[in-house]
Amino acid sequence: MDLIDCYRAVRRHTESICSHLQTEDYVVQPVADVSPPKWHLGHTTWFFETFILKPYLMGYQEYDADYNFVFNSYYESVGARVIRTDRGNLSRPSVQDIYRYREHVDKAMESFLCAEPSAEVKELLILGFNHEQQHQELLYTDIKYILGNNPLFPAYDRQYLSPKADHIDGAWIKTNEGIYEVGHQGEGFCFDNELNRHKVYLNAFEISPNLVTNAEYLEFVNAGGYQDFRHWHMEGWAWVNDQKVEAPMYWYQIDGEWHHYTYHGLEPVRPHEPVCHISYYEAYAYAQWRGLRLPTEFEWEVAATQFKWGKAWEWTESAYLPYPGFVKAPGAIGEYNGKFMVNQKVLRGASEVTPPGHERITYRNFFHPHLRWQFTGIRLAK
Amino acid sequence: MDLIDCYRAVRRHTESICSHLQTEDYVVQPVADVSPPKWHLGHTTWFFETFILKPYLMGYQEYDADYNFVFNSYYESVGARVIRTDRGNLSRPSVQDIYRYREHVDKAMESFLCAEPSAEVKELLILGFNHEQQHQELLYTDIKYILGNNPLFPAYDRQYLSPKADHIDGAWIKTNEGIYEVGHQGEGFCFDNELNRHKVYLNAFEISPNLVTNAEYLEFVNAGGYQDFRHWHMEGWAWVNDQKVEAPMYWYQIDGEWHHYTYHGLEPVRPHEPVCHISYYEAYAYAQWRGLRLPTEFEWEVAATQFKWGKAWEWTESAYLPYPGFVKAPGAIGEYNGKFMVNQKVLRGASEVTPPGHERITYRNFFHPHLRWQFTGIRLAK
Amino acid sequence: MDLIDCYRAVRRHTESICSHLQTEDYVVQPVADVSPPKWHLGHTTWFFETFILKPYLMGYQEYDADYNFVFNSYYESVGARVIRTDRGNLSRPSVQDIYRYREHVDKAMESFLCAEPSAEVKELLILGFNHEQQHQELLYTDIKYILGNNPLFPAYDRQYLSPKADHIDGAWIKTNEGIYEVGHQGEGFCFDNELNRHKVYLNAFEISPNLVTNAEYLEFVNAGGYQDFRHWHMEGWAWVNDQKVEAPMYWYQIDGEWHHYTYHGLEPVRPHEPVCHISYYEAYAYAQWRGLRLPTEFEWEVAATQFKWGKAWEWTESAYLPYPGFVKAPGAIGEYNGKFMVNQKVLRGASEVTPPGHERITYRNFFHPHLRWQFTGIRLAK
Amino acid sequence: MDLIDCYRAVRRHTESICSHLQTEDYVVQPVADVSPPKWHLGHTTWFFETFILKPYLMGYQEYDADYNFVFNSYYESVGARVIRTDRGNLSRPSVQDIYRYREHVDKAMESFLCAEPSAEVKELLILGFNHEQQHQELLYTDIKYILGNNPLFPAYDRQYLSPKADHIDGAWIKTNEGIYEVGHQGEGFCFDNELNRHKVYLNAFEISPNLVTNAEYLEFVNAGGYQDFRHWHMEGWAWVNDQKVEAPMYWYQIDGEWHHYTYHGLEPVRPHEPVCHISYYEAYAYAQWRGLRLPTEFEWEVAATQFKWGKAWEWTESAYLPYPGFVKAPGAIGEYNGKFMVNQKVLRGASEVTPPGHERITYRNFFHPHLRWQFTGIRLAK
Repeated sequence: MDLIDCYRAVRRHTESICSHLQTEDYVVQPVADVSPPKWHLGHTTWFFETFILKPYLMGYQEYDADYNFVFNSYYESVGARVIRTDRGNLSRPSVQDIYRYREHVDKAMESFLCAEPSAEVKELLILGFNHEQQHQELLYTDIKYILGNNPLFPAYDRQYLSPKADHIDGAWIKTNEGIYEVGHQGEGFCFDNELNRHKVYLNAFEISPNLVTNAEYLEFVNAGGYQDFRHWHMEGWAWVNDQKVEAPMYWYQIDGEWHHYTYHGLEPVRPHEPVCHISYYEAYAYAQWRGLRLPTEFEWEVAATQFKWGKAWEWTESAYLPYPGFVKAPGAIGEYNGKFMVNQKVLRGASEVTPPGHERITYRNFFHPHLRWQFTGIRLAK
Repeated sequence: MDLIDCYRAVRRHTESICSHLQTEDYVVQPVADVSPPKWHLGHTTWFFETFILKPYLMGYQEYDADYNFVFNSYYESVGARVIRTDRGNLSRPSVQDIYRYREHVDKAMESFLCAEPSAEVKELLILGFNHEQQHQELLYTDIKYILGNNPLFPAYDRQYLSPKADHIDGAWIKTNEGIYEVGHQGEGFCFDNELNRHKVYLNAFEISPNLVTNAEYLEFVNAGGYQDFRHWHMEGWAWVNDQKVEAPMYWYQIDGEWHHYTYHGLEPVRPHEPVCHISYYEAYAYAQWRGLRLPTEFEWEVAATQFKWGKAWEWTESAYLPYPGFVKAPGAIGEYNGKFMVNQKVLRGASEVTPPGHERITYRNFFHPHLRWQFTGIRLAK
Repeated sequence: MDLIDCYRAVRRHTESICSHLQTEDYVVQPVADVSPPKWHLGHTTWFFETFILKPYLMGYQEYDADYNFVFNSYYESVGARVIRTDRGNLSRPSVQDIYRYREHVDKAMESFLCAEPSAEVKELLILGFNHEQQHQELLYTDIKYILGNNPLFPAYDRQYLSPKADHIDGAWIKTNEGIYEVGHQGEGFCFDNELNRHKVYLNAFEISPNLVTNAEYLEFVNAGGYQDFRHWHMEGWAWVNDQKVEAPMYWYQIDGEWHHYTYHGLEPVRPHEPVCHISYYEAYAYAQWRGLRLPTEFEWEVAATQFKWGKAWEWTESAYLPYPGFVKAPGAIGEYNGKFMVNQKVLRGASEVTPPGHERITYRNFFHPHLRWQFTGIRLAK
Repeated sequence: MDLIDCYRAVRRHTESICSHLQTEDYVVQPVADVSPPKWHLGHTTWFFETFILKPYLMGYQEYDADYNFVFNSYYESVGARVIRTDRGNLSRPSVQDIYRYREHVDKAMESFLCAEPSAEVKELLILGFNHEQQHQELLYTDIKYILGNNPLFPAYDRQYLSPKADHIDGAWIKTNEGIYEVGHQGEGFCFDNELNRHKVYLNAFEISPNLVTNAEYLEFVNAGGYQDFRHWHMEGWAWVNDQKVEAPMYWYQIDGEWHHYTYHGLEPVRPHEPVCHISYYEAYAYAQWRGLRLPTEFEWEVAATQFKWGKAWEWTESAYLPYPGFVKAPGAIGEYNGKFMVNQKVLRGASEVTPPGHERITYRNFFHPHLRWQFTGIRLAK
């Protein structure tokens, strides 16, 4: 696919995700971590306008100077921005205004892409595609939060295809002690946080070929796992008690049976599917209770060719830190990953809402340990 | 006008206020005090459904049982409710859903009103009309907040007619010491908080025939009034410093000139108009700085026949307390006023967005002393 | 008693209150409203140093310039100060340092008082005595909080003489409708908030000769009064739920029997004593539940010659507001009362820890409606 | 030294640290991270009583059952406890009471130690000694905070011997790429978090023989390092702005010259001493600004035999995580380290207040990245 087709495909996919929404669904921000869908639509557009069109398209006319303020996410280099918790207070620009903004930028991008861009710009473009794809995943998870926390529990799309569970009866996968290489290599795109490829020394370990299922996790719930401090980190225990957590996110007990909110609305929890929407604290506590542990991100990467993954982001024991030789890019693009490398945990794999073609064995996702609105699950190690 | 016409007129007026909004404007709640317009539309409808249709219309089919949870404001008697700060997180029911709900209830109400209702129901109806009219005023002030705090400062309605300033050059109005009667009397509608009519003893006082103007208030601003603790209550001074208050709400200095947000968008402040959108703390501090004071609500009521009022709610020195012999109505309706009678100040008069026919010399409006999003102004006394 | 004897008596009484404390008890500040006893000792001394010695005693040597910062309470006119919530973080000046400071100031004051002071200074002196007496009462209540919230519940003084209950079987006291005068008159000392004496018009009312007892209040507790929103102000109901209030302050249920913390340590609640340490919200809710109400401060003042009072500060329905003609004194002394006249309720009477000779029928005490650490009780009216 | 002498030495050293305090200094808790010195005195005693005397000394009489509640720090297994932020609100038990408690426990311990304890108890004893030594260091840092945040800036001990700076002019220390072993080995005591000893693969790196000095750090301050977001983590930048951080903790600018609070009181900052009392965020930002980085804990451990350390805890880039094969001990002792292994950074080395004999090349200290009240400094790597 050439660049212009890639551009179109990415942009259209974003809009197709939103096609199931009502106008009101684009606007709200029930918690700070979740952004209004219309903000995602504007922000991904602003990214191309700010980093491609303004610096590289001669004579480009900025759509609206105020949009820089509204749609900047966290790039300090490019001016003031609406603070994250305020995004849901903005009724304007309207959804229609933002679609017009997309149209304006898309038109300019398409004419810009008629000519072959320089290698430097090409790199930025690929980053822009990957950036918008990351927001596609966030759109899915933010929409789920918006609808799943509404007292009416509206469905997002009754035709949405949930992935099938496919449990493997195989034995745990063993890896020998020794030196292994981790990190990205080769020609394809990767984020700066996947570099440099480097050697690590691993002790012998075993890793499960399966994610923990709802049925297995329910045993922990029913055994009083949420009431016993011994399984938890101190901060995890405080979180459980402050937030009164008693089950994974989106789980509701109705007449004694556990249901969870899905893109189809409320449904009974299916025992053989991977447990999902749990925090790192819960993943850790579950593993403790089983007398096992979570893998490190390097164990995961080394063993991942030997099991199926991609159903749910998998919490690892690793903190999100720079690889040896990591260097931030100069300018605003350098703010992409590096400045988040504290207080977060690495997740590996992918989830059912990860954009197709976006899974990568070296991909390092990262979130704070208490967050649950992503599709997050557990794979055990020992 | 008969009841059915009244009902229609009230209901239509609510909808006409919203006719200038885009769908997104109905949804957001930038601060806890402001409710999303779609919530007002639903709540006023819920009021008729809950207090008239359900108890008095035989065979009435509730529109949606979940709406009771969503649209209850503060009536503890009628079940759980969405907490106030969460109203802006709800994208559903959609605006269209709520208009359908209004239609459903309106149809039922109109058929109900074909027969002459009992005196008891009639009283509830009149309360319902007045209730919806109060929400019409809140719609105006909440919409102003929603648009006036948007970085794009969109106009609400460029045809909106602002009232003209009409300054009177007359002398201050004097009232002699003595016994006066205050509180509602006669046949017309009043809220329970305006009763009983009772005698008060007033010392001699003088009251200004005019509201304080923007030009006069600017003298206070320019004299450093916001920087001098001596004019302020201790809690007012803490509020000024915590919130970094430097001028009335909606005022912005652009290139050295004061502008304020109006229903037409940002406009230069007009010197001869009454100052508006100030807190009680500011009204008090301004009066202190002038060596004067605010009137009590009884002084205001006794003198009000002798001056023009209605441009802006006027802060009084009086706390919002029950009149002698005040009794709460039994049931949910009894929650209407009584339970707010602590920590609030009385405002008298009316504002440019008070529904026509709703002004009343005995009307007691009330807000917490730090609030400014209503049209609130200052009349001095001594 | 001449001034110098008065001075000595007041100062010694303050120290005698503290004589039962251990050094550690002087230091802590478990909540913002409570000040460490050593702060009271320093602050009352600072008052005489700042308002008498520095301006009026020629050649007076300030004890320590830093103490102005440490011991200023809320006087903005006299410089920066330690914010209230930080008082309990200061281990220095030590208790001994502060007693030395008292000695230094006392010596200077005594030499100053050898000569007859001017009328102006005399007025300040009387204010200083009354000020220190108010802090004596606060010392009692703050010490009770400090010890009563310690998990060891240490006694303050086992010899402390609690007042005897003296219930009167008499009928309710009736007062006719009419004009009455309220406010201070005559030669004796009063605070500025008791002036001017002025006329009020009262409707006929009845007031109870007795305070509500623990036994009566327990009926409210046992009847589920704390679980029924109908009796409460909206803000009171939020307070009950946020703070999980279920009984008066200092009440603890031990093996099914109610105990309360007293200056002797934990003791069973005595049924015939006045209920104490309740908030205005509780007083109001109790009255509502009985179908009665609290008196206004004017009703109280007019009727108070006909009943015994002084066991516990009595919440009134009145908000704390200026009397007609109220003027703040110029300078720092003017900050004494006026700037608190918002969001507080008036209490009338006196309590068992009010300094002898300090009760006054026109005295206006005032606290925020949620506070309970003073000796506060209920007298009903109708 | 035999066990009984060890016990006495440790216990006496704790008391000698407190010997410079006034009674009031034992009581306060200016921030949640700092505990009142009397709490440390009680808690270390409670540790021996709870984990040695109660389970192992036949017929031991508990000193006071309430003390378990007061002096438990974070051991959920051994009952409820005073929440950390409330420790400074407790005036009782008094300092004298706590010294009596120490005496009681010391007497019992000494009689217990007359007989040779079992290997299991011996291990617990050694843990108890190390535990009390850790609290000795906390006593030093907490006392510094208590006095250094008092507006009078009292000295702790004018005879306190600050360590001399000893800058080495040598070149950076180089380490080759390869496999290294880290973690504790041998007979001596270590904490569970130093185990297991295991292999790591390190890339070639260089590390500085010196800590960053005050003079070097001042260049960062003067270059506007605290005002430029590019050097900071996103959470670090938020911390700088929320807390208005402009220099290391305890630094105050007086007449244009930087001073800092030391155990002697306020003194001019000495340029050639290591910069101290900085957060991880500051250490990271400083390194970024220099174009360098912090070492990982493994780089540090491998190179540490080649440079002098021990002046100040050194922030590393490593997150605090379990070593391969880490297992929590069963029971309350298992709460010692494991449950803190999230959201914290590892510090290596030791500081001027680390108890003598307590430094260990494999010792893993850990704190949250924003904390500064420990003696924390910077060593650079590349």
